[in-house]
Amino acid sequence: MASCSLTFLPMNKCVDVEVGTGLLEAAWRAGIVLDSVCGGEGVCGRCRMIVREGPVDGGAATGILSEEEISQGIVLACQTSVAANARIEIPNETRSVNRMQSDKDARRFRAIQPGITQRTFKRAPLVTKTALQLDEPTLDNNVADAERVEQAACRAVGISSLETGLGALKQIPGVLRENGFGVTASIGALRNSFELLDLEGGDTSGRHYMAVVDIGTSTVVVHLVNVNDMTTVDAEACFNSQSVHGREVTARIMAAEKKGTARLQALIVEDINRLLSAVAGRNGVELVEISGIVCSGNTVMTHFLLGLPTEHIRRSPFIAASIEPPPLKAMEIGIQINPRGLLFCVPGISSWVGGDLTSGILATGLHERKETTMLIDVGTNGEIILGNSEWMLACSASTGPALEGASVDCGMIAGSGAIEKVYIEADEIRYKVIGNTAPEGICGSGIIDLLAVLLDKNIIDRAGRFVKGSHPAVCATGDIRSFVLYDGSGGGREVRLTQEDIENVITAKAAVFAAAKIMVERVNLSFSDVTHLFLAGGFGSYIDRRNAVKIGLLPNLPASSIEYVGNTSIWGAKLAALSSEALDEMYAIRRRTTYYDLLGSDDYVDQFRQAMFLPHTDVELFRLDLDQNDSNEVGCTPTPVNTKKQAVT
Amino acid sequence: MASCSLTFLPMNKCVDVEVGTGLLEAAWRAGIVLDSVCGGEGVCGRCRMIVREGPVDGGAATGILSEEEISQGIVLACQTSVAANARIEIPNETRSVNRMQSDKDARRFRAIQPGITQRTFKRAPLVTKTALQLDEPTLDNNVADAERVEQAACRAVGISSLETGLGALKQIPGVLRENGFGVTASIGALRNSFELLDLEGGDTSGRHYMAVVDIGTSTVVVHLVNVNDMTTVDAEACFNSQSVHGREVTARIMAAEKKGTARLQALIVEDINRLLSAVAGRNGVELVEISGIVCSGNTVMTHFLLGLPTEHIRRSPFIAASIEPPPLKAMEIGIQINPRGLLFCVPGISSWVGGDLTSGILATGLHERKETTMLIDVGTNGEIILGNSEWMLACSASTGPALEGASVDCGMIAGSGAIEKVYIEADEIRYKVIGNTAPEGICGSGIIDLLAVLLDKNIIDRAGRFVKGSHPAVCATGDIRSFVLYDGSGGGREVRLTQEDIENVITAKAAVFAAAKIMVERVNLSFSDVTHLFLAGGFGSYIDRRNAVKIGLLPNLPASSIEYVGNTSIWGAKLAALSSEALDEMYAIRRRTTYYDLLGSDDYVDQFRQAMFLPHTDVELFRLDLDQNDSNEVGCTPTPVNTKKQAVT
Repeated sequence: MASCSLTFLPMNKCVDVEVGTGLLEAAWRAGIVLDSVCGGEGVCGRCRMIVREGPVDGGAATGILSEEEISQGIVLACQTSVAANARIEIPNETRSVNRMQSDKDARRFRAIQPGITQRTFKRAPLVTKTALQLDEPTLDNNVADAERVEQAACRAVGISSLETGLGALKQIPGVLRENGFGVTASIGALRNSFELLDLEGGDTSGRHYMAVVDIGTSTVVVHLVNVNDMTTVDAEACFNSQSVHGREVTARIMAAEKKGTARLQALIVEDINRLLSAVAGRNGVELVEISGIVCSGNTVMTHFLLGLPTEHIRRSPFIAASIEPPPLKAMEIGIQINPRGLLFCVPGISSWVGGDLTSGILATGLHERKETTMLIDVGTNGEIILGNSEWMLACSASTGPALEGASVDCGMIAGSGAIEKVYIEADEIRYKVIGNTAPEGICGSGIIDLLAVLLDKNIIDRAGRFVKGSHPAVCATGDIRSFVLYDGSGGGREVRLTQEDIENVITAKAAVFAAAKIMVERVNLSFSDVTHLFLAGGFGSYIDRRNAVKIGLLPNLPASSIEYVGNTSIWGAKLAALSSEALDEMYAIRRRTTYYDLLGSDDYVDQFRQAMFLPHTDVELFRLDLDQNDSNEVGCTPTPVNTKKQAVT
Repeated sequence: MASCSLTFLPMNKCVDVEVGTGLLEAAWRAGIVLDSVCGGEGVCGRCRMIVREGPVDGGAATGILSEEEISQGIVLACQTSVAANARIEIPNETRSVNRMQSDKDARRFRAIQPGITQRTFKRAPLVTKTALQLDEPTLDNNVADAERVEQAACRAVGISSLETGLGALKQIPGVLRENGFGVTASIGALRNSFELLDLEGGDTSGRHYMAVVDIGTSTVVVHLVNVNDMTTVDAEACFNSQSVHGREVTARIMAAEKKGTARLQALIVEDINRLLSAVAGRNGVELVEISGIVCSGNTVMTHFLLGLPTEHIRRSPFIAASIEPPPLKAMEIGIQINPRGLLFCVPGISSWVGGDLTSGILATGLHERKETTMLIDVGTNGEIILGNSEWMLACSASTGPALEGASVDCGMIAGSGAIEKVYIEADEIRYKVIGNTAPEGICGSGIIDLLAVLLDKNIIDRAGRFVKGSHPAVCATGDIRSFVLYDGSGGGREVRLTQEDIENVITAKAAVFAAAKIMVERVNLSFSDVTHLFLAGGFGSYIDRRNAVKIGLLPNLPASSIEYVGNTSIWGAKLAALSSEALDEMYAIRRRTTYYDLLGSDDYVDQFRQAMFLPHTDVELFRLDLDQNDSNEVGCTPTPVNTKKQAVT
């Protein structure tokens, strides 16, 4: 087939592709990761590009683009294919959410609440490094090289047996002799055995890193952990590049069915590799010094990471290929750390409650608490764990990503430029921007605030509909009404909340609340029996509890009961990386937790419908009665870099 | 670099190589495996080829070829490189020993003595196949596919846990649904865990094969084992193609140092793959139905198989990379069985006493015998085990391959056309040829007979030198005297024993005898304390004990004490394949056996010198005093194909 050359502007990236290749794919091949909510169905309009030169096929005739846009050469990349050499501009809006988060932004993803974890785990990293000075062989002391190393390493780390894989075996004789038999062994803890992964010359035990990863449907976060002092050296985050195949897991499963799981796998593996390179490079760490990686994510993300088939997760009875994948060599799936470094996946609970929740239970110690505790993790889905040291129930509610700031027109990640707080001061609607820059968009916490403020000021009614003439900032483009929070006149971008955005947010909060209510009722309790409520996940680091209750997202509990615990997915992964005891505990947690399928619940639809109002059809459920000591804001201070974590001793 | 095209005759195989490539390598690339004793040093003269057309470089000027040969275009392939397009003939002598053994011949390698093994092992194959009919998942029975299979498989085979590797994991959802959840699981027994290797649709448990391999320095033998009825379906053998890099392990290690271990590895892997294809194809077995392979060989052969560095084995203090390699995926080294089939290597005892001897100890039950027992395994080296249920001592004597029929001018494997027996009848020297064909060469047992006959008839003296005028068949070519056993006039080839051959045989037998004597003396015993003497290895299936004692190869023990036990290397490997209990026992044997280094013995050289006579300087050691019931011949009947082996129950 004929090929042609494409240049993407403004980054000036060239790529040669076959005629007929879609623009989205071409951009991906050029290394440009783009946004797409619908997964290439031509309905979300997120993937606008501008044809500057050269012919393309399709793209304009979808009914989403205005005539003006079409006359400007704007096309939907997912509906457009390449006809010949061309120059294509990718506007800021199409790209912006996909840039890698800077260190400053990533800090926000690093937020973990050190006080939450109840129990301490023995320090026993999944990969151990130990320096060995071996006796040189003689005619009388002539055991084979591998045995010499294995025996010494077993003594040094206190294990009874150790196996060496073929790759390490080949190195051993050379490394021993080139280094006067002074070497450092890397030992991996597999489920039933230990493996000698690597042998380096000299004493390199002082440099030992592992990576822990939270694979969210929207956001991928990597922490680089110094195994020796157990600190998080640095962190990095980016949007999950799979977004090009859809915002939600279902769209991605459908994309995998059409285009192959390998495509989805390549995207997430590339994201992780990019984040690893960035975070390691910035801290003078070689990738080869990273001897293991622990990934925590929902079941579908874990499947894509490993390249496992997902199609049966999507259809009743929703069966995963595996929710407890074995440790692998990271290289087997293309993760670029030490070539024989290990990859561990945190075990999940069911097809719809993944390893990120197992991590959450471990990190919050929910499974060891006497008092009944609820953990709500809102990411692209909303997962809820209810239980205590005696029983645990898990469920998953399909929310869409609105509460993360995605599937909202001006939504963005809780990074620099995001409006994270909206409030009323002197009867004026005011806002706060992360990084004190001009606004670029609005993140989850800001959206919740804004909705509460709009409700408070009767700009929207209890069904979320704009009230005509209620406020000058309410305007209409065609049939679509929106509230313009910032008009873009001071730099940055216009930030508005549309009627459709509000519907998305209400749907999301209704799904979460209905699920929480059903869970509590299923065990014959009421919300007042819930002693702790932990909020985890992609909300943004700060959330106004009063506003969250006001819009009916959270149940009406005293502020002292509600804690924002940050990214417990990555916190659990870090505990596992530093302690095989913690990973073992995760396997136990996974077995002790019962999955409750909301679709099997008769009253879920009914409860959901009741929650589709602000805050709820039953207003009594949300009568705010805060005591004076209640702080409006629940949150936590981002963990400073290089702070020792006390949970592993 | 310029390339040119070579055609090898008479097989008419073409290959394109770079100008300057050696003829040996070119032939190897054309898929023709050749013989070379010296490993390409230009001293053995085994690799003669005839240049029929086109120029070559070098080859003629080594002093080994006669002027007549040079005028005929004969060159030494190892000293010749390609200059341009050429046609090269490979004479029969250069090729013949390398042909794959036919089934009829391979039968001889299959010889194992069923009665020898003392104990029975529990049937517990290293790879098990079990058919499972699983419940189809429902909303209430919704465990992940991998868990469903793992739980059912654990129940079916009675194990507590099972892990699934990434490759099998990817298959599971598809295989389950395409086969109505009726599947067959292949489960591999690793050292500390079990792995789900493969999942096939339907019930395929009726077809389950493993391969067992004896990797000898000279000969490679593959048995195809039906795991279900524990029979050997068929066998196949060939010369080890590494011979092109030298007859002895030391030459091959040097070749690996020069040309890379990968070259040596490729040759043995190719040999095994060729044998596997042949034996499987002939019996209607698909390679994918072979789910595991157990290899038994000396330590250097095992290193080459796995691609491990060997250079430190060759130099004091003679250290192996590993003598207990872990189980691997056979695919990791290119062995073509089921893509996720396992490869096990029988653990060795030291750098110079390998897994073939561990196999031998297990197969003969030496380690469980009350009486002191000696096992002599003569292949390209001579290894000796002395011991009983309380102690075991192992040593290795460097013999050269003369007793296998190699490093003897007309020597050949104990196959069709080999003179296997030489005797005196009516004062005439007579012989017996395997397959009753015209003689093509002489194998180990024939050589031992011939030497005894020549000594008996005073054709050679006690130092092995030809006695002038003693027999008309003694003739001389230049300085080299030889005894012409068959003149080639009735078809086949001339078979002679040269003065140099005799020296090689005497050196070999002296090395074995001196080692055996030192071993016995080291534990303050004498030969009369040895209750059983087992002979294993490449002697050929039949050996005349009287003659072996007459030439001083074996100590003078009653015939009833000496048993030829055949290929115990492969027999041990088969026991391991069918019973993980047997493999565990091998690990125990390996730990219980002490390696005794003959080079560390003060009197080895002295003992060796004394044994360099026929039979020995001390004739009293060999005064034959056979009772009437002694049979001259010790040997065993080849095990019939498809005979159930009783040792595994």
